[in-house]
Amino acid sequence: MKNYDIIIIGGGPAGLTAGIYATRYNLSNLVVTKEIGGMTLEAPEVCNYPSEKSITGFKLIEKIKDNLISLGGEIKQDEVEDVKKLDKDFLLTLESSDKIKAKSIILATGTKKRSLNLKNEKKYLGKGVSYCVTCDGAFFKDKKVAVIGGSDSAGASAVHLSNIAKEVYIIYRGNKLRANPGWKQEIEHNKNIKVLYNTNVLELRGDPMLESVVLDKPYKGEEVFELDGLFIEIGAIPITSLFKDIQIKTNNKNYVMIDEDQSTNIAGVFAAGDVTNGSNGLRQIITACSEGAISVDSAFKYLRAGI
Amino acid sequence: MKNYDIIIIGGGPAGLTAGIYATRYNLSNLVVTKEIGGMTLEAPEVCNYPSEKSITGFKLIEKIKDNLISLGGEIKQDEVEDVKKLDKDFLLTLESSDKIKAKSIILATGTKKRSLNLKNEKKYLGKGVSYCVTCDGAFFKDKKVAVIGGSDSAGASAVHLSNIAKEVYIIYRGNKLRANPGWKQEIEHNKNIKVLYNTNVLELRGDPMLESVVLDKPYKGEEVFELDGLFIEIGAIPITSLFKDIQIKTNNKNYVMIDEDQSTNIAGVFAAGDVTNGSNGLRQIITACSEGAISVDSAFKYLRAGI
Repeated sequence: MKNYDIIIIGGGPAGLTAGIYATRYNLSNLVVTKEIGGMTLEAPEVCNYPSEKSITGFKLIEKIKDNLISLGGEIKQDEVEDVKKLDKDFLLTLESSDKIKAKSIILATGTKKRSLNLKNEKKYLGKGVSYCVTCDGAFFKDKKVAVIGGSDSAGASAVHLSNIAKEVYIIYRGNKLRANPGWKQEIEHNKNIKVLYNTNVLELRGDPMLESVVLDKPYKGEEVFELDGLFIEIGAIPITSLFKDIQIKTNNKNYVMIDEDQSTNIAGVFAAGDVTNGSNGLRQIITACSEGAISVDSAFKYLRAGI
Repeated sequence: MKNYDIIIIGGGPAGLTAGIYATRYNLSNLVVTKEIGGMTLEAPEVCNYPSEKSITGFKLIEKIKDNLISLGGEIKQDEVEDVKKLDKDFLLTLESSDKIKAKSIILATGTKKRSLNLKNEKKYLGKGVSYCVTCDGAFFKDKKVAVIGGSDSAGASAVHLSNIAKEVYIIYRGNKLRANPGWKQEIEHNKNIKVLYNTNVLELRGDPMLESVVLDKPYKGEEVFELDGLFIEIGAIPITSLFKDIQIKTNNKNYVMIDEDQSTNIAGVFAAGDVTNGSNGLRQIITACSEGAISVDSAFKYLRAGI
């Protein structure tokens, strides 16, 4: 059984960049991922990746993958189902039943966005529905938009949107925002932002673009609420369940806790990208790539120390 | 006088990415830089920027700049000479004598190349001595050249020169190259490149062009080593001298100390890229871009809190 220097779990921007760096560092490595690209594939347009004026998430991932492959890097389209710590190395069991050994691991499994689970939700992706204000907010200059959620990221998203859009509505099922006091105070004082409390979205309407949503509690006497954009900010779930034997340390929101060098509480296990509490919580493609690069440099130092 | 939300000082990957993010956040901003691109311009080949198989530093900067401009961002080619803290805002004085006000600052001034401090070093600039393989490498086709240094950029420069010059020597004071394993492997396998370990250059000779250097350890029995070109790649000095009134806090290597959110010890001043002690000291294009993005998100939060 081949014992890799680094196994990278996850094939989004963090994992692919880790593969690029590991290959350039001449370390034996393999990116194991079911789907190459991760959540970036969902981005209809990426405008804040520095070197691309406007590119689909799909094409950006293709470019990063092409670089990895041209450098001699390898991707295995499979899923890691279990990781066990051996005496010194790690034993990974894949969905295909293959087993691989690794001297170090970079966990780059990312997050899943929580969805509303509405019938047409996927259909409107890139057509008015988004899960990422930083990614897509700029498309709604001077428009009318709503954010669903009451959390910190919902509050931050609404404030962020108020700088861009003409009208911003927060649609929240609760009666008190959970966003931190800073955001809450701003939301209260911001004339562009209105909060619809105790309200849920039941239905999405429009063809082909989103034109309105149906509310379970009328707003100004109307259940049909017209808007141009809907941002769903009801949370993300970090994918951290891989280590069954050894508990990987996470924060209160289940993000993997890393040090400045991307190391986790498990010696030899590094983490990068959206799954971590790094990059001050910004979680962008560019921050994920950066964390992937740093994690390889740290894994390299770890491996060299062990020689 | 216009009072910008953010003035970004420096136009390398960190500064330009900060400009992209600030523009996408709809914050009034201006990138002030003498030279667009900074040290990246000097990179003969960039292989580990995730989405580019192989690109010159110059072309990569062009792509990032094009994105900034197409988003509506602005660059002012000028140099910030002084920054003063006013009651709440900052007053910047430029080389052109223009003055600008800013509510917050992102310091992305990067580093400058270290010189050998030899007597005639400046005299030979453009006459055989260079700090930039991308700029000057092509002048040495089929010639004999040397690179001084053992770092990543020294390794990259030597490999690049081996494609142009007939013979490439690395002159390094240490006994083990610090270049990343990718470059090291290439150097070992490249018949055009020889490494002189434990060796220093004491003197530069030739009139008017550089003709030889004097070594402190003989090579093939000779202390005088004849060559046509000498590339000096011995490290970098962070550019942190802008704040005269308020001292910006730096570490023992003069890098600006930042918190996880890229904030410095001066309220309203953030820092990003090679000038900081961030990204675990890795200092890559991708880590600089990431720091630029995070610094804007933090400046945004700072500005909102002040409203």
